[in-house]
Amino acid sequence: MNFIHLIDYAGTFAFAISGIRLASAKKFDWFGAYVVGLVTAIGGGTIRDLLLNVTPFWMLQPSYLIVTALALFSVIVLGKYLIKLNNTFFIFDAIGLGLFVVVGIEKSLSAGFPFWVVIMMGTITGSAGGVIRDILINEVPLIFRKDIYALACVIGGLVFYACFQLEVSPTITQIVSASSIIITRILAVKYHISVPVLKGSDED
Amino acid sequence: MNFIHLIDYAGTFAFAISGIRLASAKKFDWFGAYVVGLVTAIGGGTIRDLLLNVTPFWMLQPSYLIVTALALFSVIVLGKYLIKLNNTFFIFDAIGLGLFVVVGIEKSLSAGFPFWVVIMMGTITGSAGGVIRDILINEVPLIFRKDIYALACVIGGLVFYACFQLEVSPTITQIVSASSIIITRILAVKYHISVPVLKGSDED
Amino acid sequence: MNFIHLIDYAGTFAFAISGIRLASAKKFDWFGAYVVGLVTAIGGGTIRDLLLNVTPFWMLQPSYLIVTALALFSVIVLGKYLIKLNNTFFIFDAIGLGLFVVVGIEKSLSAGFPFWVVIMMGTITGSAGGVIRDILINEVPLIFRKDIYALACVIGGLVFYACFQLEVSPTITQIVSASSIIITRILAVKYHISVPVLKGSDED
Repeated sequence: MNFIHLIDYAGTFAFAISGIRLASAKKFDWFGAYVVGLVTAIGGGTIRDLLLNVTPFWMLQPSYLIVTALALFSVIVLGKYLIKLNNTFFIFDAIGLGLFVVVGIEKSLSAGFPFWVVIMMGTITGSAGGVIRDILINEVPLIFRKDIYALACVIGGLVFYACFQLEVSPTITQIVSASSIIITRILAVKYHISVPVLKGSDED
Repeated sequence: MNFIHLIDYAGTFAFAISGIRLASAKKFDWFGAYVVGLVTAIGGGTIRDLLLNVTPFWMLQPSYLIVTALALFSVIVLGKYLIKLNNTFFIFDAIGLGLFVVVGIEKSLSAGFPFWVVIMMGTITGSAGGVIRDILINEVPLIFRKDIYALACVIGGLVFYACFQLEVSPTITQIVSASSIIITRILAVKYHISVPVLKGSDED
Repeated sequence: MNFIHLIDYAGTFAFAISGIRLASAKKFDWFGAYVVGLVTAIGGGTIRDLLLNVTPFWMLQPSYLIVTALALFSVIVLGKYLIKLNNTFFIFDAIGLGLFVVVGIEKSLSAGFPFWVVIMMGTITGSAGGVIRDILINEVPLIFRKDIYALACVIGGLVFYACFQLEVSPTITQIVSASSIIITRILAVKYHISVPVLKGSDED
């Protein structure tokens, strides 16, 4: 298990925890909470893989199911003590997001798509899981209303594209792109930066 | 039409009825109710087939559309007299669930996936339709909160796996696996057995 | 850019506007509104393409993303003045619907599916985007409860099929089929024609 795998597992764990905690607030049973946690963790990559017409990544190795089971077990055992770890989870989530987006970008790039598709696929990889999570718990998706989340994925994609055009080495490109996402997330949450709310035609 | 087809149609009918009845409680029109009934009946198998990257099963023969139309017609004509048949529908639904899961398992197995994927595909085949149904009528999915439903599919999958490892004949394997699902459902509903609710970090 | 492209863009614009306006009523931010607008415009065709197992149409050219960006920009700049254009949008939407359905029909027909699948694919192309839109803003899908919308798509499909059987020339078939959808929509809204509400078994 190398460093990338470690980040992948930490990100999956953080994503799964976010789903499981929201499910527990809605009185889901253990099985339901597991499903919501799993969908949060793998939903974005699954939609990406369906759009790219390849076998969904989690069908090729069971680690995502196992990590989600560990996340469920942690919530069951640790319960409300997990609240104190909110900042830890935020960091895990941000790092996981950075990695997920970069993985999504590279997978789409190697499938031969142009960069505007690639950036969309990176964004979908990072943020669609949270959207499906919110649909399952019957809430308006959080990322459409709060903080900079999906936009951080787009920024990471643009940074990746810039590095790619400047012929930066692949490893540096990955690190710089993922870092730009992590930093955007941290700054957005710390300074309450958000995208303006749309004042549209239906408002009074 | 052989016995398997008969069960397949009965299960489709029961699944469609469950969707149409919930849609009628939400004042959907006939067309909307038909769509919800159809999605309940074919949604799980459709997601399975998209994940397996094969043509969705209902695009290959029109019987599922016809059976759903019969289900809609029954609800329109019989209306509230159907309430008295609740137990009949429960049995149809349980038998249909058993069959759907076994069909999903065999299709995924013959596509060459390992057993943990196969069991997931069986569970998705049996329960994802009900989840999409609940999303369409804008409710929190019932199976995440009540009774043992998706878990019965997992149990059926594990039984199938055990039979497979013990080299039980295919027909016996199918019958034993489907029966374990049907029996689990009946016991769970009769004795109000359910998965524990998750007491998580967001509760007070 | 020929006439078909012009209608395609106008339809995409009208569909995107409908999503963006509903998102703005829910206080979505700009990014969220863009996503809802985009999904409304491309959601139906995406589900069709996933079912047909071909690369989603919008991944092959960026125009749908650009038109959706123009729609968002219009709502931001023009805001409540857009309300006065409701009738214009309705006409755009009806024309776009007619075109989308015909495009969906032709794509599925050339993939070799029988006509009952083809008509379903046309209907999905025209109406599934609005269903996903309503799921994202956490409302019961409008088309299941109000006006004739999805049914107009089915009617257009049946008209297409009739023309096809009568060996009408392709161009005439397209025009007659799309027109039947547009006229159905206009008549349904003008005379408040709707599908009957289902009085089902759960009502008291």
